Amino acid sequence: MPRPIVLLTDFGTADPFVGIVKCVIHAYAPGVEVIDLSHHVPPQDTLAGAVILEDALPWIPESGIVCAVVDPGVGGTRRALAVRSRHRVFVGPDNGLLTPVFRADPDARAFEIRSGGPIAPDRSATFHGRDVFAPAAALASRGEFDTFARPVDKPPTLLQWPAAEVAGDDSVRATVIHVDRFGNCALNVRRADAERLPDWVFGGAFRAEVGKQAVAGLARTYGDANKGEPLAYVNSAGRLELAVNGGSAATTFGIGRGSDVVLRRNGK
Amino acid sequence: MPRPIVLLTDFGTADPFVGIVKCVIHAYAPGVEVIDLSHHVPPQDTLAGAVILEDALPWIPESGIVCAVVDPGVGGTRRALAVRSRHRVFVGPDNGLLTPVFRADPDARAFEIRSGGPIAPDRSATFHGRDVFAPAAALASRGEFDTFARPVDKPPTLLQWPAAEVAGDDSVRATVIHVDRFGNCALNVRRADAERLPDWVFGGAFRAEVGKQAVAGLARTYGDANKGEPLAYVNSAGRLELAVNGGSAATTFGIGRGSDVVLRRNGK
Amino acid sequence: MPRPIVLLTDFGTADPFVGIVKCVIHAYAPGVEVIDLSHHVPPQDTLAGAVILEDALPWIPESGIVCAVVDPGVGGTRRALAVRSRHRVFVGPDNGLLTPVFRADPDARAFEIRSGGPIAPDRSATFHGRDVFAPAAALASRGEFDTFARPVDKPPTLLQWPAAEVAGDDSVRATVIHVDRFGNCALNVRRADAERLPDWVFGGAFRAEVGKQAVAGLARTYGDANKGEPLAYVNSAGRLELAVNGGSAATTFGIGRGSDVVLRRNGK
Repeated sequence: MPRPIVLLTDFGTADPFVGIVKCVIHAYAPGVEVIDLSHHVPPQDTLAGAVILEDALPWIPESGIVCAVVDPGVGGTRRALAVRSRHRVFVGPDNGLLTPVFRADPDARAFEIRSGGPIAPDRSATFHGRDVFAPAAALASRGEFDTFARPVDKPPTLLQWPAAEVAGDDSVRATVIHVDRFGNCALNVRRADAERLPDWVFGGAFRAEVGKQAVAGLARTYGDANKGEPLAYVNSAGRLELAVNGGSAATTFGIGRGSDVVLRRNGK
Repeated sequence: MPRPIVLLTDFGTADPFVGIVKCVIHAYAPGVEVIDLSHHVPPQDTLAGAVILEDALPWIPESGIVCAVVDPGVGGTRRALAVRSRHRVFVGPDNGLLTPVFRADPDARAFEIRSGGPIAPDRSATFHGRDVFAPAAALASRGEFDTFARPVDKPPTLLQWPAAEVAGDDSVRATVIHVDRFGNCALNVRRADAERLPDWVFGGAFRAEVGKQAVAGLARTYGDANKGEPLAYVNSAGRLELAVNGGSAATTFGIGRGSDVVLRRNGK
Repeated sequence: MPRPIVLLTDFGTADPFVGIVKCVIHAYAPGVEVIDLSHHVPPQDTLAGAVILEDALPWIPESGIVCAVVDPGVGGTRRALAVRSRHRVFVGPDNGLLTPVFRADPDARAFEIRSGGPIAPDRSATFHGRDVFAPAAALASRGEFDTFARPVDKPPTLLQWPAAEVAGDDSVRATVIHVDRFGNCALNVRRADAERLPDWVFGGAFRAEVGKQAVAGLARTYGDANKGEPLAYVNSAGRLELAVNGGSAATTFGIGRGSDVVLRRNGK
């Protein structure tokens, strides 16, 4: 059985781009399961795509193939990568989009995708999702990774990751890195990175300051706050997140991706 | 062959939530067919989700599993339900979202979802779509309903259903309960409920009054009205619906979900 | 193995229409692969749907079934068509939506869909995607084309195709026929139609005039222009297209579908 393929792109779903990618996958791996992670990464925003990938990473099938395409440099000199991490394979442009794979797995190994066979030697200059990454994903799904992967001679491009900044003992400067459909605002503060942060953060002994407003302490879920009231909690991806019970934190606080949030230790 | 799973959520498709749910389903029921009914239920709007479920219900595969998640109370005290109705299984939060199942099938039986095995005992407090309902749906798809379902000790929560009101012999007060992509406005007046309504409604001997505007009688399809003209007809789910041929009833009439429409018997 | 089915509609994905179509397909062709090309054709816009179909056509699986539904005349007198083109089958309303099939394949043969069996004789008047085209696609997928197709007695409806106009030796009047998610503006100038156009067009010896602005020559990909600068190039579907590197041509030029673009030969 071919290994499942997970798609992550900024193609949207109004244009036929995703459908065409699936047609190509079908051509080389008929019957394969294809799972859409998101096609609504903001256009050309590799960091936004990388954050989605990081949060979804633990749930990717163990032997899954991830085909990730946010590719403003398509047709230029950027390389096409294939990365092995444990039993998974990731294919995508060498522009930092796959940074979370290397963050999560120091043993991940990068390869360059070689053209040939179904990986169009006469590829288009603007749609490598169709001409390079889809056929590479299909081949990987069939267990034919070696037919297109060759060792890289220089390391892959990594994004400068937006880390929360520990500002003295008593405060942490964080940033909203994702706003979801419900207006919940996820911060660049992950439980997985807790060792780099003061204990009082995930201990909940803080208030989160958003401009002149503040939220005190860590709740467990939305209903821990009254209807219409804000809360901070650890979201399902292990990130500190701001929400409003029955509402939108983005609207209530007037914040969005990139907004600053200061975590200040209780009593300080 | 695993039984097909139908998804209905308010997760949207920009965030990776739906993709993660599908990854979990894949983990426990690889190869299962997954059908997306909608992921654009307005956030946290259980009634809107229930209306979509009601209209789609006759088309759900006969032995299908429906995984329905509109779940503002996630992580709180609301139960997680699994409902058997004929050969189908429905899993979702006990907040009324599954009301249409009980309306359509008085013999539907409710169970509570017990955690254990793939149904994470250490579940997150905010994403039971991933941690409870997806694995339960996968188990049900594999025919392992009994491994997670235990009898409920109190009946499931039902939504107070917004029924059209018969106001004397000559008028019915109805409400727009769904506006579709085309601006067609469906009313809470179903042919399936015709016995509770005067004969002149589905006989078509009425005018539908929307503010100071009105539409007379029942058409069969859009083209029965001139281009740009309104019509009332019975839609493909058996509901009375207002449309504009080649246009949008929502825009033309300036109405939306919750708007009042009075059906007045001809000559009154 | 059932042949894959490709869907193209104007149903959107918020309403359950697409999900219901897939439930019907599942009922008659369980396990079939279904690929969504797009469900966001602008409502009732057959030409926009046809352009998407034309651009995707080369990538449709060789023995695929295309179920295309943009159907403002549903329930009226328009016929329901099934078209054989090489090994593919296309089902859809006879309103011009399938025009690209006949443009690409002069030997394509049109049939009328006969009701009976799973193709509901008591069909609804407003949802033939569910009641006619989905079951027809499922039957075609199973190789049972002959059970529902009967020869047509008059030729299918074709759209008047918006062709670029050659205005003397030195200019071509073109039109934007599709704007994609990135704001790239595709013109009705295809390499496949190059023989009807002056050599200097695909030779790149021109400037594209958009109102008072202009883009000179043919680039290969986005990065050939400086960040924020416009370019013209041949897109992945073989169309002349305007883009802005790292931006949106639609926004930069203030244009959209239907806007005029004049290609003027260099030196003229």
